[in-house]
Amino acid sequence: MTGPRGYTYGSADLETSPVSLDDLRKIEETILWTDADRQALLRARPILEPRTDEILDVWYGYVGDHPFLIESFAGADGNPDPDYLAAVRERFKIWVVDLCSREHDQEWLNYQHEVGLRHTSAKKNLTDAVESPAAEIKLRYLIGFIVPLTATMRPFLAEGTSDPEELDAMYGAWFKGVTLTAILWSEPYSTSW
Amino acid sequence: MTGPRGYTYGSADLETSPVSLDDLRKIEETILWTDADRQALLRARPILEPRTDEILDVWYGYVGDHPFLIESFAGADGNPDPDYLAAVRERFKIWVVDLCSREHDQEWLNYQHEVGLRHTSAKKNLTDAVESPAAEIKLRYLIGFIVPLTATMRPFLAEGTSDPEELDAMYGAWFKGVTLTAILWSEPYSTSW
Ligand code: HEM
Ligand code: HEM
Repeated sequence: MTGPRGYTYGSADLETSPVSLDDLRKIEETILWTDADRQALLRARPILEPRTDEILDVWYGYVGDHPFLIESFAGADGNPDPDYLAAVRERFKIWVVDLCSREHDQEWLNYQHEVGLRHTSAKKNLTDAVESPAAEIKLRYLIGFIVPLTATMRPFLAEGTSDPEELDAMYGAWFKGVTLTAILWSEPYSTSW
Repeated sequence: MTGPRGYTYGSADLETSPVSLDDLRKIEETILWTDADRQALLRARPILEPRTDEILDVWYGYVGDHPFLIESFAGADGNPDPDYLAAVRERFKIWVVDLCSREHDQEWLNYQHEVGLRHTSAKKNLTDAVESPAAEIKLRYLIGFIVPLTATMRPFLAEGTSDPEELDAMYGAWFKGVTLTAILWSEPYSTSW
């Protein structure tokens, strides 16, 4: 396994996702996901990959501006834990690249399951061994992040193309990818998932 | 009460939403909702209101194309129930207008709570007294609908303005409004909401 601390994509130790590939195909149909979206994200990757640090500056700036969001990164003393923030930052950067390029296969599903759990009380704080008073991320914000994680990406994509149709294609595909992520990560939150 | 059958917005009989106005303000901040979005939706209303029948044709066409979605509208015999579809269609049309123009106040919250429940086993099928084998809408699709309910609106908005910035403003505000709806309706689905 290479990659940042705690990044276990593809590890044989991961649980098998309770979401089947057939479930996934239905969700993809629901969000109008097509091969054109996959292709558009593959083209977005070289635009975004060199800029993940700037992207994370924007996202962490946004989280830091909202006390009810930054409290999720609290350490034992109740203040934002710099080590926790730094470790998650590296995994977040690789998520951007993965969302652009990974196949939607069983391995991918298994890591979505893992990271969904890392937002719930089942696994939050374990990966970075942080004694955080914040035991879970609430579902309302998990869904809510679809908006900022989509909207803030548009300027980055716009700087990578001068063709408005190409921008729409990449931006629309990114929106679908983020929504798909939120859907899969919401699985452990509900018995009516 | 005026409006379509089963539309009880503002009724004194509605339960008070378990979501407080303070909760709502935090969710609005999370999705970057501002007064500019409210204004943009107010301007979108006269574009969309005369076209709600065409909009519903698009949405019902999409639902009808997917067996795992249209089954939610099954009647006692397992086939799509035309009366159920027709009744929900009228309430759906008024939702488009309400999303563009209603204040985000307690009355609004109470109706979001009611309609969220109408997607769960607590209240689905009651309003139209339908004996449906489909007892609930799954959370995965509730969140997933953010994409089609957002994306399919763009052409309608585009026909109402020739200014690309105005289109972006209205479309972005609509996206936030749909996401806010899905967030509020997801409340009964999770104890970690
Ligand atoms: C669509 C919504 C979201 C996305 C795409 C997202 C993305 C990510 C990613 C990529 C990671 C690292 C995953 C890994 O371990 O490999 C992560 C972890 C984390 N996220 Fe999110 N996130 C979302 C919602 C939220 C929200 C609403 C919060 C609240 C502020 C939040 C706070 C955190 C925290 C505290 C961690 C570390 C969890 C742990 O202890 O392992 N996330 N997120
Ligand atoms: C963001 C997601 C969704 C939105 C905005 C939405 C919108 C609406 C609206 C406006 C109504 C009528 C509300 C009223 O009674 O006043 C409704 C009811 C209904 N919707 Fe949805 N919907 C969403 C997700 C879904 C999904 C995923 C399905 C599955 C196909 C679905 C199926 C239904 C059904 C069957 C009803 C009738 C419920 C009842 O028995 O009262 N909806 N929806």
